Amino acid sequence: MEDHSIMIILTLNCGSSSAKYQLYDWSNKKGLATGIVERVGIDGSVIIHKVPGKEELKLLHPCPSHIEAIQLIMDTLVDPEKGAIASMDEVKAVGHRVVHGGEKFKKSVIVDDSVLEEFRSIQSLAPLHNPANIMGIEAARKVLPKVPHCAIMDTAWHQTMPSMAYTYALPYSWYRDHGVRRYGFHGTSFLYTAKRAAVLLGKDPFETNIVIAHIGNGASVCAVKNGVSVDTSMGLTPLEGLIMGTRCGDIDPAIPFYMMNRTGMSPADMESTLNKKSGVLGITERFVDRRDIEDAAAQGDELAQLSIDAEGYRIRKYIGAYAAATGGIDAVVFTAGVGERGPQVRTVALRGLSYMGITIDEERNDLSMTRNAETVITTDDSPVKAFVIPTDEELVMTEDTYALVEGTYDVHTKFTY
Amino acid sequence: MEDHSIMIILTLNCGSSSAKYQLYDWSNKKGLATGIVERVGIDGSVIIHKVPGKEELKLLHPCPSHIEAIQLIMDTLVDPEKGAIASMDEVKAVGHRVVHGGEKFKKSVIVDDSVLEEFRSIQSLAPLHNPANIMGIEAARKVLPKVPHCAIMDTAWHQTMPSMAYTYALPYSWYRDHGVRRYGFHGTSFLYTAKRAAVLLGKDPFETNIVIAHIGNGASVCAVKNGVSVDTSMGLTPLEGLIMGTRCGDIDPAIPFYMMNRTGMSPADMESTLNKKSGVLGITERFVDRRDIEDAAAQGDELAQLSIDAEGYRIRKYIGAYAAATGGIDAVVFTAGVGERGPQVRTVALRGLSYMGITIDEERNDLSMTRNAETVITTDDSPVKAFVIPTDEELVMTEDTYALVEGTYDVHTKFTY
Ligand SMILES: Nc1ncnc2c1ncn2[C@@H]1O[C@H](COP(=O)(O)OP(=O)(O)O)[C@@H](O)[C@H]1O
Ligand SMILES: Nc1ncnc2c1ncn2[C@@H]1O[C@H](COP(=O)(O)OP(=O)(O)O)[C@@H](O)[C@H]1O
Repeated sequence: MEDHSIMIILTLNCGSSSAKYQLYDWSNKKGLATGIVERVGIDGSVIIHKVPGKEELKLLHPCPSHIEAIQLIMDTLVDPEKGAIASMDEVKAVGHRVVHGGEKFKKSVIVDDSVLEEFRSIQSLAPLHNPANIMGIEAARKVLPKVPHCAIMDTAWHQTMPSMAYTYALPYSWYRDHGVRRYGFHGTSFLYTAKRAAVLLGKDPFETNIVIAHIGNGASVCAVKNGVSVDTSMGLTPLEGLIMGTRCGDIDPAIPFYMMNRTGMSPADMESTLNKKSGVLGITERFVDRRDIEDAAAQGDELAQLSIDAEGYRIRKYIGAYAAATGGIDAVVFTAGVGERGPQVRTVALRGLSYMGITIDEERNDLSMTRNAETVITTDDSPVKAFVIPTDEELVMTEDTYALVEGTYDVHTKFTY
Repeated sequence: MEDHSIMIILTLNCGSSSAKYQLYDWSNKKGLATGIVERVGIDGSVIIHKVPGKEELKLLHPCPSHIEAIQLIMDTLVDPEKGAIASMDEVKAVGHRVVHGGEKFKKSVIVDDSVLEEFRSIQSLAPLHNPANIMGIEAARKVLPKVPHCAIMDTAWHQTMPSMAYTYALPYSWYRDHGVRRYGFHGTSFLYTAKRAAVLLGKDPFETNIVIAHIGNGASVCAVKNGVSVDTSMGLTPLEGLIMGTRCGDIDPAIPFYMMNRTGMSPADMESTLNKKSGVLGITERFVDRRDIEDAAAQGDELAQLSIDAEGYRIRKYIGAYAAATGGIDAVVFTAGVGERGPQVRTVALRGLSYMGITIDEERNDLSMTRNAETVITTDDSPVKAFVIPTDEELVMTEDTYALVEGTYDVHTKFTY
């Protein structure tokens, strides 16, 4: 048991100018610290660091690159006063989030040079995310050269999709030569919530059909049939599908051309507008945060109300579509920021679904707006359940990392917990 | 009754290089002639003309513009030998198909100069269709100046959609200033088949919920709730939604930018590829005609099989989505070329929908492949029906024209037949 008592795992999620982390004590199943370094590579880098039971630490410290950021995380974690462990030697492995694993990675892996090479070869598929993820891995391997580093890909979970779901009706050579297909994202969140939903249903996960709506700033829906992903709303990139904070989701593909012709916008401007100035921000012309939108709608702002209705209605159509894709479902799951704490959007999303066995309990739905509980928001006699399940992507990363290092890892299509 | 006995109506559907027509005797409820002038404005213009009971006529005749084409149609219709009527004086009105009516036209109208002016002002919304439709109206008014000309818009049927269905999550000013919203098309076909489905169900059309899949070369789905359109898969343009003959339908809006970056394709090239080289042609790399695809799939061609599966699966997801949009449906309707005569695509589209009350009868489905009958393709104990209903867009155009001229026309949301 000796080595188990010191099985501490660090998970890292590096963005282009940030590095999020969590330190987890596997043997005692408890979180030791979480935090984020913001403004990496920009003036005014700052670490925000939380240890359960201690006061939050906020410290300015220059981080010209991810190397300094990761070093800062290490130093903070072992700080005698603010830290969580005595020495970095206690950390047995690091798990890294990698957004895009392309088609080559169907499960989490231990990183070596050839894996890094593969990531570099598919960088262009996720130009906003993968380069930062790779930088993070490279930096962490330098700072912590002695421990295994694992990569957990958002896309791996979706590699069970059939070709009819991942193939676009575009020239087939775009797939063959350029990798243009649906990949999907939010895989760790879907994996976690799918397993939890099966537990709540009291069913074997591999006999469970569910639709999961992960609604945060980014948002996507997943169709889970017999425990595995068979379709999802994000595609080649995280732009497709639901109405998000600032991303447009599904639109007529002719619109960007129509607007470029009319306004003279460049393709680069257009792409950036679809990603950063659309979504609920586009509809409301003012808000990204759904709390602001709910407040404005309550004051009679018509565009705010339209935004809630359009966002929820889009989710409802995906629930219907994915019930059809799976041949009928046992449950709908809501997760992530809005999914966990946005009763209004959930109400619109579940309206009128009694024909497929889903009847919302408005009171339960109104009460379910916290990260701290898994709740049912349908009536007791509703044959198909709707759950609100707080997601835990870090836990999946930690578990995969632990299992890879222990040699007990298995692909999620067989894995159970 | 005298004037009724000579109520003959001509309908015209002018494309950029073609003019389709139908001559219909309203009082005796029978078609007198149909035909098409092809290659208008191109060398080798030709009229193909059919009168029931007579041999098909095919005649080369130069048509440098739609004026000559429409004159040619008139001359052919009154030809003592090949024609159908004695004099053009017998034609009491002309009905013109107009693809895009924007937001201003919620129903069919009698054309005057101000209506034509409105059409010109929204030309850019349908640059491939509206200019030709307008040319056709202008030419027909010159050739037949004494009769009323009516415009029947594809988009009018969908003007009942709520804002949450027609609003894209894009900068709201694009809607306000440039008319960017979902309009939808195939309205006359949806109107016709929705009314027929209500008759087959024995229900009041305004208490009927159905999903209609119009699958021809162009293809779209419509959600009908209490007899009116509440959502549809085509959007600002006919590019969005289903997988079509050569159009891509729904894709990740980031894909065009990804491919333009990688290949240096221009926006104009890209737009044309999405419209003309995608769809089932894109997936199979060879075929547009679904009969060729079914044959190739039967011979083991994997891309042909994938194309059938992807096309049918996309329809299935829309059926599920629109059942959710309407709160449950009474029937699914298939219409147009593939909808009427493509049992394989229908099979994939209806697979696994028993959870919502739809169970396909494979034998009935296989037998239903003709334009000549309205058929049920679900089992007798299927609470939700699936119908194959041959569409008749010309009949709707004729009826609207007749009613407008007689002063009995009412918007389709009140109309019954
Ligand atoms: N009480 C609340 N009501 C509605 N929305 C909320 C509430 N709390 C958080 N949110 C929304 O959750 C979204 C962020 O979700 P989150 O899952 O944290 O995002 P990310 O995709 O960045 O991980 C924000 O738009 C925020 O407005
Ligand atoms: N027997 C058949 N089986 C499958 N598809 C068919 C059959 N007959 C016609 N089609 C398809 O119908 C499509 C054309 O449909 P139609 O409604 O006439 O098109 P449009 O959209 O041009 O009006 C073609 O792709 C054709 O392959």
